[in-house]
Amino acid sequence: MIRIGVIGGGQLARMMTPAALELGLEIRVFAESHGQSAGLATTTIGDYKQLEQLREFAESVDVLTFDHEHVPISHLEQLVKQGHRVHPGPHALQFAQNKLLMRQRLSKLNLPMPKWAEIRNPEQLQHFLDEHSVAIVKTPIGGYDGKGVRVVSEISQVSDWFDRIENLGGSLLAEEKVNFVREIAVLSARNESGDFSAWKPVQTTQRNSVCHEVVSPAPNLKPEDAIEIARVVSEQLSCTGVLAVEMFETFDGKLLINELAMRPHNSGHFSLDASITSQFEQHLRAVADLPLGDSAQLAPWAVMLNLLGTDSESDFRNLYSVAMRAHPDVKFHSYAKLPRPGRKMGHLTVIGDDLEQIQRDGHSAAKLLGSE
Amino acid sequence: MIRIGVIGGGQLARMMTPAALELGLEIRVFAESHGQSAGLATTTIGDYKQLEQLREFAESVDVLTFDHEHVPISHLEQLVKQGHRVHPGPHALQFAQNKLLMRQRLSKLNLPMPKWAEIRNPEQLQHFLDEHSVAIVKTPIGGYDGKGVRVVSEISQVSDWFDRIENLGGSLLAEEKVNFVREIAVLSARNESGDFSAWKPVQTTQRNSVCHEVVSPAPNLKPEDAIEIARVVSEQLSCTGVLAVEMFETFDGKLLINELAMRPHNSGHFSLDASITSQFEQHLRAVADLPLGDSAQLAPWAVMLNLLGTDSESDFRNLYSVAMRAHPDVKFHSYAKLPRPGRKMGHLTVIGDDLEQIQRDGHSAAKLLGSE
Repeated sequence: MIRIGVIGGGQLARMMTPAALELGLEIRVFAESHGQSAGLATTTIGDYKQLEQLREFAESVDVLTFDHEHVPISHLEQLVKQGHRVHPGPHALQFAQNKLLMRQRLSKLNLPMPKWAEIRNPEQLQHFLDEHSVAIVKTPIGGYDGKGVRVVSEISQVSDWFDRIENLGGSLLAEEKVNFVREIAVLSARNESGDFSAWKPVQTTQRNSVCHEVVSPAPNLKPEDAIEIARVVSEQLSCTGVLAVEMFETFDGKLLINELAMRPHNSGHFSLDASITSQFEQHLRAVADLPLGDSAQLAPWAVMLNLLGTDSESDFRNLYSVAMRAHPDVKFHSYAKLPRPGRKMGHLTVIGDDLEQIQRDGHSAAKLLGSE
Repeated sequence: MIRIGVIGGGQLARMMTPAALELGLEIRVFAESHGQSAGLATTTIGDYKQLEQLREFAESVDVLTFDHEHVPISHLEQLVKQGHRVHPGPHALQFAQNKLLMRQRLSKLNLPMPKWAEIRNPEQLQHFLDEHSVAIVKTPIGGYDGKGVRVVSEISQVSDWFDRIENLGGSLLAEEKVNFVREIAVLSARNESGDFSAWKPVQTTQRNSVCHEVVSPAPNLKPEDAIEIARVVSEQLSCTGVLAVEMFETFDGKLLINELAMRPHNSGHFSLDASITSQFEQHLRAVADLPLGDSAQLAPWAVMLNLLGTDSESDFRNLYSVAMRAHPDVKFHSYAKLPRPGRKMGHLTVIGDDLEQIQRDGHSAAKLLGSE
C-alpha cells in the first residue's frame, strides 16, 4: 500500500484523508500539535522547520506532500537528495513559497501578470509609486489570506518592513494595483508522469482578503485561455500535485496571474461535492503517480461558501441541526477546529441547475450558521 | 463534538470514516484485530461478545452503532439500561439479527413476504416440502452473503443442522423458493426524532449469493410501493440509522420482503458517488439524531460493481493504474484488505445519462481489475 505522508495537520490534510481511504492509500500526517484538524490521520507531532524530524517522518512513508507551503526549501532539497519522493518538489515549491521568485520565473515564461518590481529600499518603492501612484507591496515569503500584503501609496506605510528587510529576505515585491472585474482561479493537477488535468475556471470572491464565495464554473468565461495559462505554469515549473493559479480578469478581458498555490486550495473545495474527482483525490493520485481522474462537474453550477468563526464559543455544531433541517441539499464540511473570530471553521457547497437559486440556498444556510 | 462509536472494523466502518470527518463528528471503531479495514479510526481492539469490553468502549463515546449485526442483543439491552445510546437499538436490531423473529414480526404487520414456516424438526420440514417441493432453509442467526442458507428438496440436505439445532437457537426458517423477475432493495434512514428518508429502489444482481451489480434507480419500477414497505418496516420496528430492505419482484409484479439489514448495506454503496447524501453520511446523521440529508441522485443512472478477490496475491492495487487510466470517470473504492478469493476487496461506481454505456464502462473497469 502506498503510504502518503502529509506535512501539516490543517484542514487540507484533513480533507485528503477521505480521498486516501477511498483510493486504498495509507495516509500519515506530520502535525505541529495534537488536536489539529487532521487529527485522525496524525501519526507524528513535530516541527517542520527541523530537518531531522522531517527526515524521520519521510522514512516512514513512500511520498511526502503538503498541507501548507512553509517547509524550508533547503530541507526538502536534502530529503530529495537522500532519495525521498517529495511532491511538489522543492524546484517547483520555491515558486509558491516565494512570490518574488514566482514573478521572476513567470516573467521569463512571458506569462501575463500585473506590473511588478523587486524593491530593496525606499527609493525603489518611491520610484514604483511615482509610476503607479498605488502599489500592492508584499513580503515575498510567509503571507497568506491577506497577511504580508499591504496597499501602499506612501513609503511610510511599509517603513517597519524596510526596518527588518534583511529578515524578510532582503527584498519586497511591489505590484501594480490591478483594476479588475473579478478574480478567477484555475485548479489543475499534474502527476510525475506528466499527465495534466484541469477543472473549469472558477469565480472567487474575497471578503477581508479571505476567500468568501466560489462559483464553479466562472460564469461568462471561456475556459480555454485560463486553463492554458495554468498548463504552462504547471508544465514549465514541473509542478506535481494540485496547482491553483489565481488570476485577475481585467476590464479589457485580460487574465493576469495573481498568486500560485501548489496544493489543494480553498478555491477548489467545491470539487469535493461537485466534481467526479475532487481536488483532494486528484492531489493524491498525482503525488502517488496514479492516472488522473475525470474533473467533470456533476451539475451545471456549484457554489462554495467558507464558514468563518464568529467568536470563541460557537463552533457551528450547535447550529448544525437548524441549518441541516432547513437545507437538506446543502453539503456541510466541518474542520473540527477550536472557534476563533475569522477562522476558517468549515465550508458548505450547493450544486444545481439554477445558479441564483443555489446561491440563495447557500447564503441562507451560511446565515443560519452565523457566518454571514 | 459528538463521538460515534462503531462496533466492528470492516469496510462499512471504514466508509463511515470520511462521512464523520465531513460532518465534524468524531469516530471511534471497536475492531476485532489490528489491520482491519477501518484501521485509521480504530481506537479499541476487543471481542464484541464480551459485555465488559463493550461497556468500556460505550463509555468512551456518545452513541454506539454497528458495522455488523453480530453483537449479542442481551449485551445491547444491558448497555441501553445503563443509559448508553445505541442505534439501531436492540428492540429493532433483533429483527435484523434473527430471521425467524423478523418473519414473525413482519407477518403481524401484514407485510408481503414469501410463505414461510418455523421448523423445529425434520417432520415439519417434510411437511413444508410436501407443500412447496423446494424450500429455502436458513439458520435464523449468523448468515450473510449466502452463508447459512440452503436450497433444499430433501430433509437430508440439512440433517447436519438438525443435529445441532439447539446451537442454532432451536429452530430453522423455511421459506418458499420465490420465482422472481429480479431482486430490488430499498435503502432508507430514520433518526431518533422519527424523520424518514429513502433513496429510490435499486436493482441488485447476485452472483454466487454475493451482491455483484447494483443499478440505481431500479429500471422500470415505480418507487412508491417499495418505499412504502420500507417506511412501514422502519417506523413499526423503530429502526434508527440506515435500513436496507431486500425484496423479490415476482412475475405478477408483487414485491416480497427477502431480508433486512439495519446498517449501511452493499446495495447502497452507489450513494457514495451518486447521491447528494451517501448512506454512510445519512447513517451518521441518523444515529447522531441530526436532520437527514437529501437522497436525490446526481445523474439519471448509477452502476455499482463489487470487486472480489481473485487469489491471495492480487490486491488490485497493482492493477489500479491500468484501470484508472482507461476509466478516468470510474470511482474506485478499496477496502485495504488482505486479498482472498471471493472476498469483497472494494467496489466501483459509474454514473451517467446512458445506463448501457455506464454498465459497459463499469464492467470493463472491473475486468481490468481481474474481478469479472
